[in-house]
Amino acid sequence: MYNIGIDLGGTNIAAAIVDEKGNILCKGSVPTMRERDYKEIVKDMAMLALQLVSEYGITNADIHSVGIGSPGTPDTENGVIVYANNLHFKNTPIRDEFVKYFNVPLYIENDANAAAYGEFIAGVGDKYTDFVAITLGTGVGAGIIVNNKIITGSFHGGSELGHMVIQVGGSTCSCGRKGCWEEYSSATAMIREAKKAAIAHPESKLYELVDGDIENMNAKIAFDAAEAGDEVAQSLVDWYIDYLAIGLVNVINIFQPQAIALGGGVSAQRDKLILPLKDKMLHEIYGGAESLKTELLVCELGNDAGIIGAAMLYNLYDQA
Amino acid sequence: MYNIGIDLGGTNIAAAIVDEKGNILCKGSVPTMRERDYKEIVKDMAMLALQLVSEYGITNADIHSVGIGSPGTPDTENGVIVYANNLHFKNTPIRDEFVKYFNVPLYIENDANAAAYGEFIAGVGDKYTDFVAITLGTGVGAGIIVNNKIITGSFHGGSELGHMVIQVGGSTCSCGRKGCWEEYSSATAMIREAKKAAIAHPESKLYELVDGDIENMNAKIAFDAAEAGDEVAQSLVDWYIDYLAIGLVNVINIFQPQAIALGGGVSAQRDKLILPLKDKMLHEIYGGAESLKTELLVCELGNDAGIIGAAMLYNLYDQA
Repeated sequence: MYNIGIDLGGTNIAAAIVDEKGNILCKGSVPTMRERDYKEIVKDMAMLALQLVSEYGITNADIHSVGIGSPGTPDTENGVIVYANNLHFKNTPIRDEFVKYFNVPLYIENDANAAAYGEFIAGVGDKYTDFVAITLGTGVGAGIIVNNKIITGSFHGGSELGHMVIQVGGSTCSCGRKGCWEEYSSATAMIREAKKAAIAHPESKLYELVDGDIENMNAKIAFDAAEAGDEVAQSLVDWYIDYLAIGLVNVINIFQPQAIALGGGVSAQRDKLILPLKDKMLHEIYGGAESLKTELLVCELGNDAGIIGAAMLYNLYDQA
Repeated sequence: MYNIGIDLGGTNIAAAIVDEKGNILCKGSVPTMRERDYKEIVKDMAMLALQLVSEYGITNADIHSVGIGSPGTPDTENGVIVYANNLHFKNTPIRDEFVKYFNVPLYIENDANAAAYGEFIAGVGDKYTDFVAITLGTGVGAGIIVNNKIITGSFHGGSELGHMVIQVGGSTCSCGRKGCWEEYSSATAMIREAKKAAIAHPESKLYELVDGDIENMNAKIAFDAAEAGDEVAQSLVDWYIDYLAIGLVNVINIFQPQAIALGGGVSAQRDKLILPLKDKMLHEIYGGAESLKTELLVCELGNDAGIIGAAMLYNLYDQA
């Protein structure tokens, strides 16, 4: 059985034919050109899907379903994107438009949820029934799976763990609240604080590694400088890990998932991030260290997670 | 069809025969005497259930199931209480012991979850599929229902919304963390801060209403003094509502339930609490005021919620 997963991004539309175990068989992409009318974007998604079918040498009838991971808030039932800021979508009837070109069962999900579902089905989460994937990137994105199902909220915009306030009166977030978790635990937050620390300490290794241009700053530089013994970088990393641990323990106290997997740029630090993070979480967990039963992992599918998760969405509906 | 619900408390065991719509038909209680061996406590629960059957003039065969709402962490599958601090339970095999006296299908749930489920089935939550009940009492207790099922966490100790840190480095909680929501939004927290404010302002109405004994302080006094125009009390109420609103918007950003119902002592203030709370939440909600789709309600079943919810637990298993 074949399914097609489509990851609708602000820059590119990526798609693949995926087998029922979540393996990618044939992959392609086209530019989104997101300023266009939605009808042109949806047509290009359908054309890409049809092209993959042809390339892989199968027929449209071999495709069990198509899944789309889209930015914004999907109305999964009606196949509509209620709102997606970066694509100018508002109550946009994706399904109705798509099936004009390729008439298959079509499922839509938020892109962060689709990526989490991909890791859950075919990646680092494949052993679990209760799993949370958290992306430490521009923001803090999350997908939450409880008892094999995605938690979306009744109004399709839930699981916004990044917009959980953890510091009342703290740093102002793009969402308008103060002290959201993503103001402390996104890659953006780490880079913001690392720049400040480097500028305040031009004698530091942290400053040396940006090679004269503060805009070179990234999470790797911060972790590398800390590992080289730079105290400025070490305090920054400690600060970052403290907030990340506190937010993660909040998530555990609410969901107690079997595993949480971290993705996004910062997670590339792997053990340099995970080991001190676990250590800090042991001090935060409800009921003492022996209560930390949730595994802490790193996502493994990278950008393919969203495509694979989208392709596997049919699982949630066929079983229902 | 009849079911029996038992609310196992630290002081009393309360039980009732409940019909399939969640109406209480016949109710009784006995003291818990919680220092006793668990076998005696469980025997008393079974005896109370048998006595209700006899009093109501039906037979044991008429009882479809018994549900128990217990403090602590239940292993629902095995009918065991993994841990309950105030009852000295540790891996206590409630079901095995209970069925020695009354052989029926027996279901166990955490007491906060059972109470939320009671409100969900037969109280203020009965119109919804996605519902959260939050008790503002000694702590901040919560029961979360998503798609008609209770969110318990994989290790039976989840949905601890009260132990979500909302103020990193804040007030130290009984759980060991700093800045947990319940340190700001429990009735206990409100009384703690009200006492401080009254002592600091002996000229205030807030102080006057405790009638010379600061230990008389309670939430009603604080709201009454504020309503009478006392500025000290008003700032206290504002402080309380700010933190409560922030925590509730966190819950909405994660779960987007159709409704949240508040219970416990503070919720008796009804509109004096709910109206300013909604106003504050409108300023916190993701996506602006029009995004606040979650209804904010007050629980209506009081102490019966736990009994009714326990009696209705069979629903979760019969349908599975």
